[in-house]
Amino acid sequence: MKKLIGRPGSVSGLALRLGQCGFAAAAIGVMVTSLGFSSFTAYCYLIASMGLQVLWSFGLACLDVYALTRKRDLQNPILVSLFVVGDWVTAILSLAAACSSAGIIVLYSRDLHYCNDQVHLPCSKYQTSIAFAFISWALSAISSHVMFWILLASI
Amino acid sequence: MKKLIGRPGSVSGLALRLGQCGFAAAAIGVMVTSLGFSSFTAYCYLIASMGLQVLWSFGLACLDVYALTRKRDLQNPILVSLFVVGDWVTAILSLAAACSSAGIIVLYSRDLHYCNDQVHLPCSKYQTSIAFAFISWALSAISSHVMFWILLASI
Repeated sequence: MKKLIGRPGSVSGLALRLGQCGFAAAAIGVMVTSLGFSSFTAYCYLIASMGLQVLWSFGLACLDVYALTRKRDLQNPILVSLFVVGDWVTAILSLAAACSSAGIIVLYSRDLHYCNDQVHLPCSKYQTSIAFAFISWALSAISSHVMFWILLASI
Repeated sequence: MKKLIGRPGSVSGLALRLGQCGFAAAAIGVMVTSLGFSSFTAYCYLIASMGLQVLWSFGLACLDVYALTRKRDLQNPILVSLFVVGDWVTAILSLAAACSSAGIIVLYSRDLHYCNDQVHLPCSKYQTSIAFAFISWALSAISSHVMFWILLASI
């Protein structure tokens, strides 16, 4: 059970962390280059949440690289408990940010038709950023489940 | 490990299910009595998601009552796997619905100040409904963690 795909200190774990970090960074990049994002609290929250995701997953990716190059085992219960808590917090915050932003883009494009009527609104950039945030959340959710599984197996 | 609080077929499990069901029903009740909710996709999705939560948790509450009165044990791996999948799906859908609705109410009350300017908007009712949805999600998240824990312990 300890040889799960995505476990810390493995190549698949590193790929998962780099994926989370990359998509979160892409979500931030697309959002901050969109005109008028700062007038929406939800979009600012998306950037903050994705920023936390970038920091967390980049830190763990560095730890994975260290474990892979030095052939260290990262699967001790205290370290894994820390990963579980961090992963759950970042996954829940990412989902909350992506969903609250998605709620607004659906309101603007479907309910109020502002995206068609007000051409200056960069709706497609907002949508792209939110899509990246959802992908980052999905990868983060996979990580957090794998970590929880490893923690229970190691108790 | 199998004597966890909130496990299926226990009084605490029944209380958790009734809490989820009650708060989800309250969220639906408050939302459907709010003027103009149907023009927001996110609020309609909140009602659909809370409807699913009511059906799921009421079904499991009935199963808990049956197990308590007939003194049956519900903790076999197949049944618990079903509970885990159902709980995770309803918990994620509830969080997504609550967050997307919260994104809109924050936009209306903080960013656009519509709640102060447009007095006909029942913002406080929308907020109450969303708060109930968040409570229902929190209870559902507790349930899904307990179920996942029990499943892993029973494998």
